Amino acid sequence: MKEYTVAVVGAMGAVGHEMIKTLEQRGFPVSRLVPLDVAANVGKSVRFKGADVAVAEAKEGAFTGVDVAIFSAGGDASLVLAPIAVAEGAIVVDNSSAWRMDPGVPLVVPEVNPEALDAHKGIIANPNCSTIQMLVALKPIHDAYKVQRVVVSTYQAVSGTGGKAIAELTNQAKAFVAGNPVEAKVYPRQILFNALPHIDVFLDNGYTKEEMKMVNETKKILDPAIEVSPTAVRVAVYRGHSESINVQTEKPFTVAAVRELLERSPGIKVMDDPSKLVYPTALDADGRDETFVGRLRADPTVPNGLNLWVVSDNLRKGAALNAVQIAETLIARKLLR
Amino acid sequence: MKEYTVAVVGAMGAVGHEMIKTLEQRGFPVSRLVPLDVAANVGKSVRFKGADVAVAEAKEGAFTGVDVAIFSAGGDASLVLAPIAVAEGAIVVDNSSAWRMDPGVPLVVPEVNPEALDAHKGIIANPNCSTIQMLVALKPIHDAYKVQRVVVSTYQAVSGTGGKAIAELTNQAKAFVAGNPVEAKVYPRQILFNALPHIDVFLDNGYTKEEMKMVNETKKILDPAIEVSPTAVRVAVYRGHSESINVQTEKPFTVAAVRELLERSPGIKVMDDPSKLVYPTALDADGRDETFVGRLRADPTVPNGLNLWVVSDNLRKGAALNAVQIAETLIARKLLR
Repeated sequence: MKEYTVAVVGAMGAVGHEMIKTLEQRGFPVSRLVPLDVAANVGKSVRFKGADVAVAEAKEGAFTGVDVAIFSAGGDASLVLAPIAVAEGAIVVDNSSAWRMDPGVPLVVPEVNPEALDAHKGIIANPNCSTIQMLVALKPIHDAYKVQRVVVSTYQAVSGTGGKAIAELTNQAKAFVAGNPVEAKVYPRQILFNALPHIDVFLDNGYTKEEMKMVNETKKILDPAIEVSPTAVRVAVYRGHSESINVQTEKPFTVAAVRELLERSPGIKVMDDPSKLVYPTALDADGRDETFVGRLRADPTVPNGLNLWVVSDNLRKGAALNAVQIAETLIARKLLR
Repeated sequence: MKEYTVAVVGAMGAVGHEMIKTLEQRGFPVSRLVPLDVAANVGKSVRFKGADVAVAEAKEGAFTGVDVAIFSAGGDASLVLAPIAVAEGAIVVDNSSAWRMDPGVPLVVPEVNPEALDAHKGIIANPNCSTIQMLVALKPIHDAYKVQRVVVSTYQAVSGTGGKAIAELTNQAKAFVAGNPVEAKVYPRQILFNALPHIDVFLDNGYTKEEMKMVNETKKILDPAIEVSPTAVRVAVYRGHSESINVQTEKPFTVAAVRELLERSPGIKVMDDPSKLVYPTALDADGRDETFVGRLRADPTVPNGLNLWVVSDNLRKGAALNAVQIAETLIARKLLR
C-alpha cells in the first residue's frame, strides 16, 4: 500500500492533537508525519506511533515533499499558508472557515458529498463542526424524503473554541468548588453552569457567524434549496455538540422508516429507545467517531414534520476525523498520488 | 389593607422556600404564614419576616382559617390535599401538574390570561415553568401578529427537579474537581458537563411529559390554535431556564416593532444588543423576576418567521413568583375575600 507524507498544521492545538491521534488510530498510510505550528512551538514534539516527532515551523518551504497537509491553524493562517502548501505540491484539507465558501473549493463531508472532491484545485475545506453532524444525519433523510426546512438549536461544547476554553471551564469549576470568584476570560460571560447564545461573532442580520455557517454550508454541501434557521448556543460541556433539529420534508414518511434508514446509513449510530431511557448525550459521543441520533419523533404541527436529537464529538467527526476521512476519500477516489 | 392567612404546602422544598421568600419580598399582605410539609418535616421551621415559623403537617384540618394555600408539594399530594384545602375554605394555587389540564381549573399566567381566574372553583393551577416564560414572551407577539406555530428547544436548570438535583450537580462538580468518579443518582446520566434530552417521563408518542406540557398548556392559556413543537433538554445550570424559540405569525412584522412591543410589555426585560454582546443568560436571570428576551431576529426561511432567546428564573417566574402573582391577581380582581 502506498504511503504518504502528511503534514498537520496547528499540530499543538486541540484539533491538531486530535488529528494526529486520528491518523494513527485509523491506520492512515503515513510514511512521514510533519507536525507544523507557529515559531513559538518549534522544538516541542508530538507523539505519533510510539515516537516523538519534532514540530517544525509552518511557513514557506515547510511543505516540500508533503502529499497532504491537514490544516487546523485558524482562518488567517490558512489564507496565507494553504496556497503556499499547494504551490509546494501538497493537497490541503483545511479545517478553518477561510476557504469553505470559495466556489473553487470543495466543502466535503465524506458520507454526504464525496464526489465534490473530484473537482478540487488543491484546497479542500472541512465544514464547520455543527454543520457536519447535522448533515450526516440529514443526508439519508434528504435522499429519501427531500428536506425542505430545518430549525436547529445547538448545545455546543467548549472544545470547539480550543484549548483555552477547555482550561477556562476547568478553572471555573475549580474556583466554584473552592468557593472562589469565577473568572471569565475566553468567553464574555461565565460558561460554567450557564448557556451562552453566542458562538463566533455577531453579524448585521442578528445571526452569529456560526449560525450562518450552518445556513450556507448546508446549501453548498447538501442542497441549495434547503432552508436552515439556526440558533447556536455554547453550553458547559467539554466535548460533544448536541443539536435539537426540527425538519420538514417534501415527501411523507413514518418515523419507523426514518429510524431504519438511519440505522443503515454510514457514520450514524441510532440510540433511540425512550422506553429504556436510551438517547445520546455529549458524554456518549466523547471520543467516538459516529454521529449519534435519538429522540426521533413525528412533529404533527406541520405536514411531514420530524424532530430529532443529534450528537457527535466535535473534535472528531466535527473536525479531525472528518478531515482525515477526506484524505482517505482522496486516496479511495485516486485523487492523491 | 386587608391581610390574609397564607399556607405554603411543601414549605421545605426548593420552590416552597422560594415562595415564602417571594411573599416577603413582594410585600404580599400576609397576616399569618402557615408553612406545611410532610410529617417528617414537622418541628422544622422556616424564616419569614425575621421570625421562625414552625412547620405543621399538611393534612386534613391544616387549612382551617387559611385564605389562600400555595401548593408546591408534587402532583400526588395536590390531588389529595387541594380538594381538602378548598373544602376547608382556602383558595388553592397549585404548582404541580395535577390539576392543570382539568377543564374546571384555571391555568394562569397573570400577564397572559388573568381573566381566567374569574371562573375559578377553588383550585387554580400554576403552569409549568418552561411554559410560563415562553408565554410571557409570546403573548404580546400573539396579540399583535397572531402566533401560528412555535418550535422550541429548552436549556433547563436542575433546580426544576428540586433540591436533590441541585445537590447532585454540586456533588458531581466536587467529585470532578477532586478527580473522583462522578455519580448520577437523581438523573439517569451525569448532568455535569452534559445535556440530557429528557425531562419528566417519556410518553407513547415519543415526547416527554415536559414537552407535552408546553404543547397543551400553551393551547389552554394562550390560544388552542397555536401549534408547539418542543424539545426539552436539561443542562448543567442551577437556576434559569433558557429557550430557543422559533415563531411563525400570521401577520407580518418588523423585528424593530417586535422589540419595541416587548420592551413595553409586562414582565419582560429585553436584553438584545448583539453589537455590544448584550443577550440574556441563565446567570442573568438567577433571582430576578423578569422574563428576559434577546437574540431577536427575523427568520427568512418562512413568511413572518422570528427567532428569539427567552430566559427566566425557573424557581421565581417559573414557579414561586407566578404563584404569588396569581394570589395578588386574586386580590386585585376581588376574588379573595
